[in-house]
Amino acid sequence: MGAPAIINLEQKFGSFADHWNPRIVGGYNGNELRLVKLQGDFTWHSHADTDELFFVVKGAIGIEFRDGTRRLTAGEMIVVPRGTEHRPFAESEAEVLLIDREGESNTGDTPSHRTREKLETL
Amino acid sequence: MGAPAIINLEQKFGSFADHWNPRIVGGYNGNELRLVKLQGDFTWHSHADTDELFFVVKGAIGIEFRDGTRRLTAGEMIVVPRGTEHRPFAESEAEVLLIDREGESNTGDTPSHRTREKLETL
Repeated sequence: MGAPAIINLEQKFGSFADHWNPRIVGGYNGNELRLVKLQGDFTWHSHADTDELFFVVKGAIGIEFRDGTRRLTAGEMIVVPRGTEHRPFAESEAEVLLIDREGESNTGDTPSHRTREKLETL
Repeated sequence: MGAPAIINLEQKFGSFADHWNPRIVGGYNGNELRLVKLQGDFTWHSHADTDELFFVVKGAIGIEFRDGTRRLTAGEMIVVPRGTEHRPFAESEAEVLLIDREGESNTGDTPSHRTREKLETL
């Protein structure tokens, strides 16, 4: 097998502009590495069968939970445990690395107008 | 369940100084989020049962593979597929987020003087 490819986040984020539409940039142990730009409000949802990792690469985001809100800036990450309701938001555009189980819907068990049926691979 | 904790990488990296001694800072779907400082040469090894993700947070690293070397700088990541021999190195100190399956040895199937028997959790 050849040496694996390097994933340059700045380059990948530079290749798309829309919000709340994750791109798949690689795989790890049955999970997908996804890059997403956030701006505005997402919808409440949870993921029954996968934890979800958020790593803020640029800017700042918030994640509302039923018992409070967490605010993260670049260089911070959080793991939302499976089954935990949450609602991400960003007052200004932010860039985030997400990790989700392969094929998991971006809105999990709670489809909404934010659901993306098929994610593009970069 | 309460809102999950935020993991601030700069703060965590500031809390230890030694090289090649990963700290566990969280978990995701049966995998461990590990922070490690690299400087100098690691040993050749592979991981039979887990892919290994390297995300360079600060500085630059190289990873030697049997068919060539990949060099990564801050903001770049790579996934080393399970079973792939590799040898990380860093000419100057670098900070890296690793993701490995829970309990996986840092030297995988190839113990060496770099093996750390039990990783500390921060």
